[in-house]
Amino acid sequence: MPTPDLAVIGGGQLARMMQQPAIALGLRIRLLAEAPGVSAAQVVPDHVVGDYTDLDTLRAVVADAPVVTFDHEHVPSEHLQALQAEGHACRPGPHALLYAQDKAQMRVRLAELGAPCPRNAPISSVADLEAFGFPAVLKTTRGGYDGKGVWVVRSAADADEAFAADRPLLAEELVDFRRELSALVARSPSGEVRSYPVVESRQVGGVCAEVVAPAPGLDADLAASAKALAEQIATELDVTGILAVELFETTDGRLLVNELAMRPHNTGHWSIDGAETSQFENHLRGVLDLPLGCTHARAPWAVMVNVLGGSVDDLEAQRAVVLAAEPDVKVHLYGKAVKAGRKVGHVTAYGDDLDDVLARARRAAQLFTSGVDS
Amino acid sequence: MPTPDLAVIGGGQLARMMQQPAIALGLRIRLLAEAPGVSAAQVVPDHVVGDYTDLDTLRAVVADAPVVTFDHEHVPSEHLQALQAEGHACRPGPHALLYAQDKAQMRVRLAELGAPCPRNAPISSVADLEAFGFPAVLKTTRGGYDGKGVWVVRSAADADEAFAADRPLLAEELVDFRRELSALVARSPSGEVRSYPVVESRQVGGVCAEVVAPAPGLDADLAASAKALAEQIATELDVTGILAVELFETTDGRLLVNELAMRPHNTGHWSIDGAETSQFENHLRGVLDLPLGCTHARAPWAVMVNVLGGSVDDLEAQRAVVLAAEPDVKVHLYGKAVKAGRKVGHVTAYGDDLDDVLARARRAAQLFTSGVDS
Repeated sequence: MPTPDLAVIGGGQLARMMQQPAIALGLRIRLLAEAPGVSAAQVVPDHVVGDYTDLDTLRAVVADAPVVTFDHEHVPSEHLQALQAEGHACRPGPHALLYAQDKAQMRVRLAELGAPCPRNAPISSVADLEAFGFPAVLKTTRGGYDGKGVWVVRSAADADEAFAADRPLLAEELVDFRRELSALVARSPSGEVRSYPVVESRQVGGVCAEVVAPAPGLDADLAASAKALAEQIATELDVTGILAVELFETTDGRLLVNELAMRPHNTGHWSIDGAETSQFENHLRGVLDLPLGCTHARAPWAVMVNVLGGSVDDLEAQRAVVLAAEPDVKVHLYGKAVKAGRKVGHVTAYGDDLDDVLARARRAAQLFTSGVDS
Repeated sequence: MPTPDLAVIGGGQLARMMQQPAIALGLRIRLLAEAPGVSAAQVVPDHVVGDYTDLDTLRAVVADAPVVTFDHEHVPSEHLQALQAEGHACRPGPHALLYAQDKAQMRVRLAELGAPCPRNAPISSVADLEAFGFPAVLKTTRGGYDGKGVWVVRSAADADEAFAADRPLLAEELVDFRRELSALVARSPSGEVRSYPVVESRQVGGVCAEVVAPAPGLDADLAASAKALAEQIATELDVTGILAVELFETTDGRLLVNELAMRPHNTGHWSIDGAETSQFENHLRGVLDLPLGCTHARAPWAVMVNVLGGSVDDLEAQRAVVLAAEPDVKVHLYGKAVKAGRKVGHVTAYGDDLDDVLARARRAAQLFTSGVDS
């Protein structure tokens, strides 16, 4: 295989979707996949199967790759520091990625930056939790995702499961929010920053269900604040590639930072079909320190709906049904086996009329999930 | 490797660009590549290296593939007929592909359909040519492309090289044309047909240099006629996937068919960034008999300029220069070594103002070709 332009650690759908702009730009990806035949390994010829928690495996994968980037935040910091010391550019670097890996560190750092956050405190005991007060959201500081590692607790008894996990915990106030927003930015090591339109992210059971771009009816000042906040965080933390800042819009009209992700993010999938430059292309351009592309929307409205594993086992057979029902919805399947609730694809519709766009995207996703037309 | 959804014969840039929508749609391509590391082999994990003129090689590649399609028209008809007889769906089939492979057969068939063509005649001797008259365009009936196998002859002496080739020849009138147009349609075996906007194709030295979508100032009736003609040809010849009908717009305002191609075509590359559904996606949807996607343009103007091999040897190093100069031009590199005049990539710009769009696309292409800013 020829020398890669970059190594991507992790073989999920995010790495898979990086391959499309890599093909266009003539960029060669080397992939570290968790197992044979995982989502990205199906479409990236130059891949190695191995364990991303093993430093020697990482060393072998990135050997001749000048830049290393990621499909997830789970590579141990000390390994990234070792790779950096050996001359590989990790983008984002471990000094930035730390704040996407550890929620307690993230809260401390965001407080230093003056970024608005829910009230929060590290929790080591029931006494700590009672001192913090109820209701609260308890989170493991590391490793949670899609609602896992998160508990809403209204009394000490509700926290048994959280304490049983025997992992560092953080308590946060239960925010009274109107909706969730997401502000995505791309940033390069040279310091170029480009913001995507702020979107509304609608969760079901802690999992992103659908995203509307831009967030309907969002106050222009609040949108500008969200963008400025995301740009500030990207710059101050020295993030490279995509940063997603998940936000609460509170019922009294403030923004609070919920989570950070330093990679292409589910709330940016709409950009593949809906923006001038997709988040995946700008992630590649960012981490390779290439000039970034325009982040503007190409249509007044875009709606992305996740395809979560449901009662349809054979997504590929169902593809013909979906395209017949909605020939102009853009379909993205990840090549993953269906399991209940698993993200196995997404669909995007766009156009001038939000109700129509929403209806088309939801119908397509529902046909993939339940097989039943709405 | 899991069972492929389709086999693609030929590993050039057209097959490479099919892989992007294949990733989105969750379609598994098996590729027959001419040599290791060719354009599409770089991005399609499931590929075989071999000779497409060898029937056993073809049989091995398509063994478990229900559908076979093509990056070029050069697979021998008898092999395609053998594969069809063995139960593989060749799309387009040999009965259609014949008219893209053999210009003499194409002219006879188009005449039967009443499609307007330049005056033409098969040529076996100088006497035939003198009877046809001068000036004339002499073409080998098979195997020509990008101006190769085509001679403009103004006297018998001009035809020495053509006759020296010792291959069947066709003479055509030298058409007095205003410009060249291209009408692209996608068609599925079920008979669904969708037309792309008619574009203007600008050639330099017989090679497509740039494409403007839609053709500027094209008379609406003429555009409708071009679409209707392409749809008629696709239907009557039973083409599946993309059909490109290259047309002359004569100085007296008529349309004449120049060439047919039955695969994604250089005059449709603008559709990747400029149309609702790219020609590559609709080719896959067509050959797999999936419902076709919308072929409308997403912007008032799109301009595609080919990157032909020039004085810049290292296109990948030049990529940063191009993106810095034109961050919003969409870059497509084919992973091919630079040779003089070889198609090694293309760029597309789109927007509301044709002059601006043209200028941006040309500047980006020129930076890739000559390295000199305009």
